[in-house]
Amino acid sequence: MNKFGRIFSISIFGESHGELIGVTIDGCPSGISINEQDFEHDLNRRKPAMNGSTPRKEDDLPEIVSGIYKGFSTGAPITILFRNKNISSLDYEEIAQKPRPGHADFVGYKKFEGFNDPRGGGHFSGRMTLALVAAGVVAKKIISPIEISSALMEAGGKKNIVKAIEEAVSNGDSIGGIVECSAKDVPIGLGEPFFDSFESVLSHLVFSIPAIKGIEFGSGFEAAKMKGAEHNDVFMDNSGKTLTNHSGGINGGITNGNDIVFRVVVKPTSSISKTQQTINLTNGELTQLAVQGRHDTCIALRIPVVLEASLAIVLADFKLMSY
Amino acid sequence: MNKFGRIFSISIFGESHGELIGVTIDGCPSGISINEQDFEHDLNRRKPAMNGSTPRKEDDLPEIVSGIYKGFSTGAPITILFRNKNISSLDYEEIAQKPRPGHADFVGYKKFEGFNDPRGGGHFSGRMTLALVAAGVVAKKIISPIEISSALMEAGGKKNIVKAIEEAVSNGDSIGGIVECSAKDVPIGLGEPFFDSFESVLSHLVFSIPAIKGIEFGSGFEAAKMKGAEHNDVFMDNSGKTLTNHSGGINGGITNGNDIVFRVVVKPTSSISKTQQTINLTNGELTQLAVQGRHDTCIALRIPVVLEASLAIVLADFKLMSY
Amino acid sequence: MNKFGRIFSISIFGESHGELIGVTIDGCPSGISINEQDFEHDLNRRKPAMNGSTPRKEDDLPEIVSGIYKGFSTGAPITILFRNKNISSLDYEEIAQKPRPGHADFVGYKKFEGFNDPRGGGHFSGRMTLALVAAGVVAKKIISPIEISSALMEAGGKKNIVKAIEEAVSNGDSIGGIVECSAKDVPIGLGEPFFDSFESVLSHLVFSIPAIKGIEFGSGFEAAKMKGAEHNDVFMDNSGKTLTNHSGGINGGITNGNDIVFRVVVKPTSSISKTQQTINLTNGELTQLAVQGRHDTCIALRIPVVLEASLAIVLADFKLMSY
Amino acid sequence: MNKFGRIFSISIFGESHGELIGVTIDGCPSGISINEQDFEHDLNRRKPAMNGSTPRKEDDLPEIVSGIYKGFSTGAPITILFRNKNISSLDYEEIAQKPRPGHADFVGYKKFEGFNDPRGGGHFSGRMTLALVAAGVVAKKIISPIEISSALMEAGGKKNIVKAIEEAVSNGDSIGGIVECSAKDVPIGLGEPFFDSFESVLSHLVFSIPAIKGIEFGSGFEAAKMKGAEHNDVFMDNSGKTLTNHSGGINGGITNGNDIVFRVVVKPTSSISKTQQTINLTNGELTQLAVQGRHDTCIALRIPVVLEASLAIVLADFKLMSY
Repeated sequence: MNKFGRIFSISIFGESHGELIGVTIDGCPSGISINEQDFEHDLNRRKPAMNGSTPRKEDDLPEIVSGIYKGFSTGAPITILFRNKNISSLDYEEIAQKPRPGHADFVGYKKFEGFNDPRGGGHFSGRMTLALVAAGVVAKKIISPIEISSALMEAGGKKNIVKAIEEAVSNGDSIGGIVECSAKDVPIGLGEPFFDSFESVLSHLVFSIPAIKGIEFGSGFEAAKMKGAEHNDVFMDNSGKTLTNHSGGINGGITNGNDIVFRVVVKPTSSISKTQQTINLTNGELTQLAVQGRHDTCIALRIPVVLEASLAIVLADFKLMSY
Repeated sequence: MNKFGRIFSISIFGESHGELIGVTIDGCPSGISINEQDFEHDLNRRKPAMNGSTPRKEDDLPEIVSGIYKGFSTGAPITILFRNKNISSLDYEEIAQKPRPGHADFVGYKKFEGFNDPRGGGHFSGRMTLALVAAGVVAKKIISPIEISSALMEAGGKKNIVKAIEEAVSNGDSIGGIVECSAKDVPIGLGEPFFDSFESVLSHLVFSIPAIKGIEFGSGFEAAKMKGAEHNDVFMDNSGKTLTNHSGGINGGITNGNDIVFRVVVKPTSSISKTQQTINLTNGELTQLAVQGRHDTCIALRIPVVLEASLAIVLADFKLMSY
Repeated sequence: MNKFGRIFSISIFGESHGELIGVTIDGCPSGISINEQDFEHDLNRRKPAMNGSTPRKEDDLPEIVSGIYKGFSTGAPITILFRNKNISSLDYEEIAQKPRPGHADFVGYKKFEGFNDPRGGGHFSGRMTLALVAAGVVAKKIISPIEISSALMEAGGKKNIVKAIEEAVSNGDSIGGIVECSAKDVPIGLGEPFFDSFESVLSHLVFSIPAIKGIEFGSGFEAAKMKGAEHNDVFMDNSGKTLTNHSGGINGGITNGNDIVFRVVVKPTSSISKTQQTINLTNGELTQLAVQGRHDTCIALRIPVVLEASLAIVLADFKLMSY
Repeated sequence: MNKFGRIFSISIFGESHGELIGVTIDGCPSGISINEQDFEHDLNRRKPAMNGSTPRKEDDLPEIVSGIYKGFSTGAPITILFRNKNISSLDYEEIAQKPRPGHADFVGYKKFEGFNDPRGGGHFSGRMTLALVAAGVVAKKIISPIEISSALMEAGGKKNIVKAIEEAVSNGDSIGGIVECSAKDVPIGLGEPFFDSFESVLSHLVFSIPAIKGIEFGSGFEAAKMKGAEHNDVFMDNSGKTLTNHSGGINGGITNGNDIVFRVVVKPTSSISKTQQTINLTNGELTQLAVQGRHDTCIALRIPVVLEASLAIVLADFKLMSY
């Protein structure tokens, strides 16, 4: 279902090489100042910025076509469109027959019985995260003064991210990475015991971002090696602030007033220049594939602002529900 | 919201030390043979079985009170109740004032303004997973012939699980663990690109299980260190079967026909016998706490069957939606 | 889907002649005083009270089995059970083969492929409204000080309801009726333009009550004959109060501060003593049927309190969403 | 919530005098032939066609901007846009201060605290039904061979519709009407006992259409005057076909294989040329209003195709769920 959220909810549409990408934001309270310049900062952070990102260049100028009147949200659904301009003229007929290993090409073909739009991944494309980032800009206004930040912690298993990417580019290969995201000044009490724990709802949204294969909160997978006496965060006072934050700001599925902290793993981009074996979907024979065109060497580079948007969207929904 | 699922959906109710725990399963097709004996095997697997599990003993006999007629599902909601019998007589008044570090006591008190049921964690208790396991038994019938299995891979950071637990018991402490779960013979095409990727929906359910702080699919966090050429799974033939399974059976949020494989981290139980510092919620002063009563040293021991149930529930829902 | 509501949501389960009828109320705020006596008044109003109602006698004592602790709602789901005691010992095997004309027997058999519980209509029974009334009692506490009332306006096309029923009883027949329901002191602004207009959400719930075949708001079907100048309600002042109330308290799907007023038509009970023609589902032959057992001559008599409950549930959900 | 439907679901956005009106259709199966010409017939039926309809003229050409590739649905969300071209240049500042009696102006202003778009009713406008009709065109393809039809039965209380409208136009007034809609060749078994009866879900959608104040199925409000022996539809054979169709094709909330038949009442348009009393929202004083600009004398004229769309959307959703 292309909809997410209970009160503050978003739905997205569009394809990578179709006419546009769009997002409809429903449940935004009226009276929030929103204009097209507000989106510039976060949309720029999502753009390919350095070696290692796709050379596809798009303006990504948001067109707000509903829900805003005289610069303020009206309470009606806000729809934002992004025209696709720099559309590749590759021969997608051939590509459609040779699914890229590790990509959604094969499952898209099978699930939609060959009717999926194969151009640039169609609706499965990482370009859809443009819609998430736009919705995140609106969500950040709603959750103020909560502050969200995110950063790429390592790429290709190394802290020296620039070097790891250069190496991968020179090999025609790609690398994965780990991105951390956190929120400060979160109120106590967001989330539900069953089934809408804060982790449940956030991971639901985060796993719709292409290439993410794992998520952990607070001490995360390290917790498997810890003792309870070590892992339990000690309360400092009645406010719920704790000395450590192994919980990642969440107990029993509910925010505890400490910083929300989570990390995701981003797999290496599946589209690589190196020649790979694949199958021909029409005749079933094994064949070779070297992905032409533009792709990111390290898609993890562009994930931080998408994670921030995801966290903001979830916080906005829980905040509006908590009154 | 205490409901999960779109077609095959479940809602749970009850408290650890209340009268009962229950689950209502909606959307189960008619004509499925279901009787109370069917639940015995999985419910027994969830029971505390060895040193390291809580000494609370419950029969956990399911009472099917609706939705079954003459041994078959009728198409109406199936409700299953489990009476709580072995209810502790501890003085919960005192406990309610001293939140256990790392537990939901504090957030439960704050979110529900002191009206939460503090006895044994109330609705936040791990005992609620009884309801998930029961729903999983029904789900497993629906998804046949898909086969699901799960196992505890390590505890306290060690493969020698028995030893790690003995050590923790002797220290009055607790330990975490890592549990893996997988499914064989999964059809291609379950899941949606946005926002209901298979990982999204499964992680949503999994993170409602108390004590789980991370989830990873396929190669998971290891993918951060891999190259694309290495991580991309090579197709063997037209069926979509791949030589490796770094994807964990899912590409672009959709099952690809290979085994679904995921792992979760279970944090060490927060309730420990060791004395810990906490706060008094009434007067705000720091105080000491040594958790009395019954608790699991390694709650991860009891998680495998709960993960199986979660996976079965998600598969059942996607299967019923995919027609 | 056996669930209704977005924040204050209810799910129901059980069958007319099964073990019990139950309702789970999710999203009830914590701290609301609720005890079993609170239900007595409305449950009694739903009971068969006079000639024309079924002679089936049930205590209908609510058992609150979750979500209440020390007399107050905890914020966790509230489940209330009603045991079925006065279960008829009729031979339902035969009845299951001969669908009652006008009843759900035929569609239940077809939809659930013969696995439906045919005893007393199973999950289709009017007895399920017991669950609605119980949820309505909780909802009424949440929406205070809004006041709801409801009454049977006519039966069998006549204002002299007692006489109309007596006549029908003597003929072994049944009659329909019209029930009006209204709410006073409703705040302005409940409801959404698309698709959750107040009328949309309320009619959704109301049409799940068995036997209801129409609903109208304010001037309702009379509006077809009116002119705009006549139908438009004139504002008296800035508060939005109007001289007339043809709108039924709702404009553009949103409450306008005037009384909510709606009416429903209740069809004559389909179960009648008179001999009717039906079919044998097994062999397809035409056959005769005279419904044995207990049934209401005028089920509309018992609908007012069910409508009140429906309106209260919808108001509670919108109120909790509107903050 | 601007979303309707469980599997086949739609969300709408836009304002009467904003840039555009749009609809996103989610859950449409892949492989359905859809092109812009397909919409022409139904969109034309919705246009103002005769005396009595608004003189606002719009091309209403659909732009399909996502979800279609090479003329077939891809399985991804289908978004269709309609540019607003003939936008009035009236001074809406003044109008925003004087709510039209019987219109959503007042509640829109209050609910959204003055931030609503007041131009032509904004998101409350009847123009939003353009989106419903477009979604209906897609739905009709999915439900084939079910056939849907609809007609205006009476206007201003008269069967001579043309004359009734002429009279109202000459008086600067407006009139209401009654519209009937039906479907043939409906399969048995669509709908759910609780809470998603066929009537529930259909009325939910129908009441989001502006100006509708009542709905009735089959014999509808006439049933209040009938006896059970009269109202019960007699089965003709094992197929479930009945001699009469008082049920309107639905028993117990589930389609029974007979024609679905329902009627709605459309109130007289609230915007009329006649001078009316209203209030000034800024200073609270009583004032006069004569609605300028374009409006329909009998909006009921344009409702039949909107009802058809609504019924098709609901049938499509139930059909896709029923597999």
